[in-house]
Amino acid sequence: MIREKYARLAYHHFPRTTAQYLGCQWADTALPEEGRPDFHPPPLPKEDPYCLDDAPPNLGYLVRMQGGILFVYDNQKTLKCQEPHSLPYPDLETYTMDMSHILALITDGPTKTYCHRRLNFLESKFSLHEMLNEMSEFKELKSNPHRDFYNVRKVDTHIHAAACMNQKHLLRFIKHTYQTEPDRIVTEKQGRKITLRQVFDSLHMDPYDLTVDSLDVHAGRQTFHRFDKFNSKYNPVGASELRDLYLKTENYLGGEYFARMVKEVAQELEDSKYQYSEPRLSIYGRSPDEWPSLARWFIQHKVYSPNMRWIIQVPRIYDIFRSKKLLPNFGKMLENIFLPLFEATINPQDHRELHLFLKYVTGFDSVDDESKHSEHMFSDKSPCPDVWTSEQNPPYSYYLYYMYANIMVLNNLRRERGLSTFLFRPHCGEAGSITHLVSAFLTADNISHGLLLKKSPVLQYLYYLAQIPIAMSPLSNNSLFLEYSKNPLREFLHKGLHVSLSTDDPMQFHYTKEALMEEYAIAAQVWKLSTCDLCEIARNSVLQSGLSHQEKQKFLGPNYYKEGPEGNDIRKTNVAQIRMAFRHETLCNELSFLSDAMKSEEITALTK
Amino acid sequence: MIREKYARLAYHHFPRTTAQYLGCQWADTALPEEGRPDFHPPPLPKEDPYCLDDAPPNLGYLVRMQGGILFVYDNQKTLKCQEPHSLPYPDLETYTMDMSHILALITDGPTKTYCHRRLNFLESKFSLHEMLNEMSEFKELKSNPHRDFYNVRKVDTHIHAAACMNQKHLLRFIKHTYQTEPDRIVTEKQGRKITLRQVFDSLHMDPYDLTVDSLDVHAGRQTFHRFDKFNSKYNPVGASELRDLYLKTENYLGGEYFARMVKEVAQELEDSKYQYSEPRLSIYGRSPDEWPSLARWFIQHKVYSPNMRWIIQVPRIYDIFRSKKLLPNFGKMLENIFLPLFEATINPQDHRELHLFLKYVTGFDSVDDESKHSEHMFSDKSPCPDVWTSEQNPPYSYYLYYMYANIMVLNNLRRERGLSTFLFRPHCGEAGSITHLVSAFLTADNISHGLLLKKSPVLQYLYYLAQIPIAMSPLSNNSLFLEYSKNPLREFLHKGLHVSLSTDDPMQFHYTKEALMEEYAIAAQVWKLSTCDLCEIARNSVLQSGLSHQEKQKFLGPNYYKEGPEGNDIRKTNVAQIRMAFRHETLCNELSFLSDAMKSEEITALTK
Repeated sequence: MIREKYARLAYHHFPRTTAQYLGCQWADTALPEEGRPDFHPPPLPKEDPYCLDDAPPNLGYLVRMQGGILFVYDNQKTLKCQEPHSLPYPDLETYTMDMSHILALITDGPTKTYCHRRLNFLESKFSLHEMLNEMSEFKELKSNPHRDFYNVRKVDTHIHAAACMNQKHLLRFIKHTYQTEPDRIVTEKQGRKITLRQVFDSLHMDPYDLTVDSLDVHAGRQTFHRFDKFNSKYNPVGASELRDLYLKTENYLGGEYFARMVKEVAQELEDSKYQYSEPRLSIYGRSPDEWPSLARWFIQHKVYSPNMRWIIQVPRIYDIFRSKKLLPNFGKMLENIFLPLFEATINPQDHRELHLFLKYVTGFDSVDDESKHSEHMFSDKSPCPDVWTSEQNPPYSYYLYYMYANIMVLNNLRRERGLSTFLFRPHCGEAGSITHLVSAFLTADNISHGLLLKKSPVLQYLYYLAQIPIAMSPLSNNSLFLEYSKNPLREFLHKGLHVSLSTDDPMQFHYTKEALMEEYAIAAQVWKLSTCDLCEIARNSVLQSGLSHQEKQKFLGPNYYKEGPEGNDIRKTNVAQIRMAFRHETLCNELSFLSDAMKSEEITALTK
Repeated sequence: MIREKYARLAYHHFPRTTAQYLGCQWADTALPEEGRPDFHPPPLPKEDPYCLDDAPPNLGYLVRMQGGILFVYDNQKTLKCQEPHSLPYPDLETYTMDMSHILALITDGPTKTYCHRRLNFLESKFSLHEMLNEMSEFKELKSNPHRDFYNVRKVDTHIHAAACMNQKHLLRFIKHTYQTEPDRIVTEKQGRKITLRQVFDSLHMDPYDLTVDSLDVHAGRQTFHRFDKFNSKYNPVGASELRDLYLKTENYLGGEYFARMVKEVAQELEDSKYQYSEPRLSIYGRSPDEWPSLARWFIQHKVYSPNMRWIIQVPRIYDIFRSKKLLPNFGKMLENIFLPLFEATINPQDHRELHLFLKYVTGFDSVDDESKHSEHMFSDKSPCPDVWTSEQNPPYSYYLYYMYANIMVLNNLRRERGLSTFLFRPHCGEAGSITHLVSAFLTADNISHGLLLKKSPVLQYLYYLAQIPIAMSPLSNNSLFLEYSKNPLREFLHKGLHVSLSTDDPMQFHYTKEALMEEYAIAAQVWKLSTCDLCEIARNSVLQSGLSHQEKQKFLGPNYYKEGPEGNDIRKTNVAQIRMAFRHETLCNELSFLSDAMKSEEITALTK
């Protein structure tokens, strides 16, 4: 019920079945269209995806940050009286209370035993289902015309744009630019213009000799448990010059090379027809100019692709900016990230480019090495972002709360205007403390990784009951945090958690041209997944993606938003109805245990 | 020394280093060109690969089978006096003695302990090498210009032609034929001509609705330890009509569809530039006409590709043919398999097509389910093939001996004429008795699978010392006999056995378009293989393949046939010299232990 409240306020997903069993407010009132996230449908075939003409008028609202959260005022008067526009604002006190409530729950002995047993039960139940119904499932799929694993839609739900091409692709691109335009001026150093040839000369390198080995962007045994080494793999040949030139949106060329490579990747997706991807682009929060510059990059280089939806990732590196004196406090970073979005929402006319770009952005991600320990413990006594001036980095839960809070306000403002909303989809549970998963349980629509759910039966059970989507990347984990054979994906899938497969960083982790297929193939081989398993994962990936309602109807069936077998159209998803029924009955069974217990407690309380 | 004798007589490989340490006959005399297998170099770019004009004249020799082996006579007179042409003939008595010698060795307690310890030592030594030299190896590779894992040559050393396309490819091809030529007559039943449309009508199927699920050629959990079920996966949609139509060289269309698909696969290999493959085509031995018919198929449909070399597989299914009364005895089967080859070798003028086809055939394979138990125990008392009339199938070692014997005679005859020779490359050690590995130790140039070496330390050590190449297919094993994580490939590679990676059956086991890359990628991911490991495997694959001397020089370097680091050209192979030196020193070290022991035994014997 706690999560339901947070999800509802921010226009995140919450499963209707669960809401009904818990008797949540949302359960009966909400129509499928209402209270759900809302993404911009893709432009029609003949429509110009870069048309800047439909920007709605200026509302004239004013925005001010207070305590790390942006408040919207209708006009100067209400600003003066401190009467903000009636948008729900999350309350720090409630949040920290909710946090500690769940923290208490996950360490409570009897709750742990209960959840542990139910999870074991779920796993055994699936084994039984498999033994009994495996052949029937396969029979259903065999008699399903024209649809198989190859032509069901799959979304790469977690991938970083700067690593969305594989190593061989990057290598080929670098060689190609050197062959075709060695004398082009590509950068400027201390006022001196430098050509591509000079860049390579200064690195003492002939691109003809360059290989994937010397490029050295692939993760290997050296990166295991070394996120620092992994991060440096983003520098081709270890040279940050080449990263700036080829993998950034802001440089002397206006990010042209990067855009060209991303578009080549998009073209491959479009050719494959059934594959989609949700690449992350960075906004750092160093300056408010980052947003207009990113939007300009997108429009100028025409990066739009029907097979891509964009997510903005915010690296948790305030400490680095602060120590370099680029920021006065954490509040300023939040302001740089969110204020431009509020402005573009209130006055799209004057921020046409950003307004347009935001049509194709569907969410926010929070990224960095989770295993870094933070000394600060987040509570309602913690300093507010505007007085967080120390060089220390705020803890994970602090980042998550303030990102969630601002996204929530922004979503409500945008919804009022009939504009698309955003999902909060942080990296969570890849490493570090399991409390990260508690923060995300409240604030996230869905998460990437979730490995550490392995270690907390209560949280795992809660993620199951709330059907929180988890984008898992076992090949990434295999190079960084957890060996493939120990990855919990198979176990999570069996229990019924809402998992999808994603690549994270094809540049660092994959070998073949088709990274997402490689990810599916290896999972299928190592864990002996059936076609039905694979198609269930693919269906999950579309559901949890930022694809619009219209696209999801096309890819999954008109009733995709309904839960259980009636939401499944086997002709589109190739998921057996037996499987769907099993999943739904199992979830209802777990929920009815809980609601029965709740009722009997109420009765006990009444009769006392 | 026993193996060296068998290898020498049949023009198989034997490592010179090992020969030198053991003081074998071959050690010093043989130049690289001498006594080694000899394959036809590929036609020059402007040469016609199907030119039938260069057939050498008829020698007029006569061939007769005796005791299951073909003997060559210079003329009627020598035939009458039973004085065969002086070609080495293997002797059944010696063979069975050698077999029992090695069988005794592998069960001898002290030998087992010794080999077990040496193998453990080899593994630990590699770990140590890895810890100390991993970074130096990688540094070598990084500074190696223009060559990386993607552009080193790789050969798919074990693949069946009838399953060389992946399931999606087969599906697409079937749909394409139906779309483009539904009214073509494709088969004949009881004199009635049947169109493609009628074939599908009779199966109650619309190819438009066909999916990889309904095609059902992919191995799944159901095939594990069920080779029978696996074999039936060769029938698309479970219909043997479709297998005949699409996957056979002999049918109403003269195998046109199969040829077209094989050529599409070949085209993909040619486009990839660095990948080669050695597909197996079947000769069953039911009739002597199989050979000319196969050669005609090859030439008529122009199946030649520079990226493919052909291997002939002989299924061990005499029992089926005998029970259907297609064959009077086992000797007839051998005659059907080998006599046409002798005739084409003696009189190429009159067998031009077969003579031409044999230029592109480089070896023989022996295939079937090894886990089938045979009741017969092969010895020199066993009935000869010409009197093997029972319906019982001869045991594995019987098949191997008679195939080896005839290949050996054939190779010697062909060598005399300056024609290319063949390698014997049976499936061995996939399942069943470990004695199979003893037979192959004597008779095979190299083997496919070799999983069961895991179970015999003595044999494993012998395969190491003799550097017998093993084409391993862990994804195939994963679906049939052994889970991926338990596959010994990584361990064999570490110890220094001569392993390569191969796909076996992309149709049944692989998901992506690039089956061989999928095989390498999964091995690299699951076992965390380094680039140097991968390139070592790729180099092994070229070495053990039937590519010609000229091609191997081009792909591996001019001195590729030399052992140790001097045989390695890092600019072509991307294998670090440190690795090569480690392998060579380690092998020399093991061998010097043995030769020292031999010497000290001689001294002891002398002083007694």
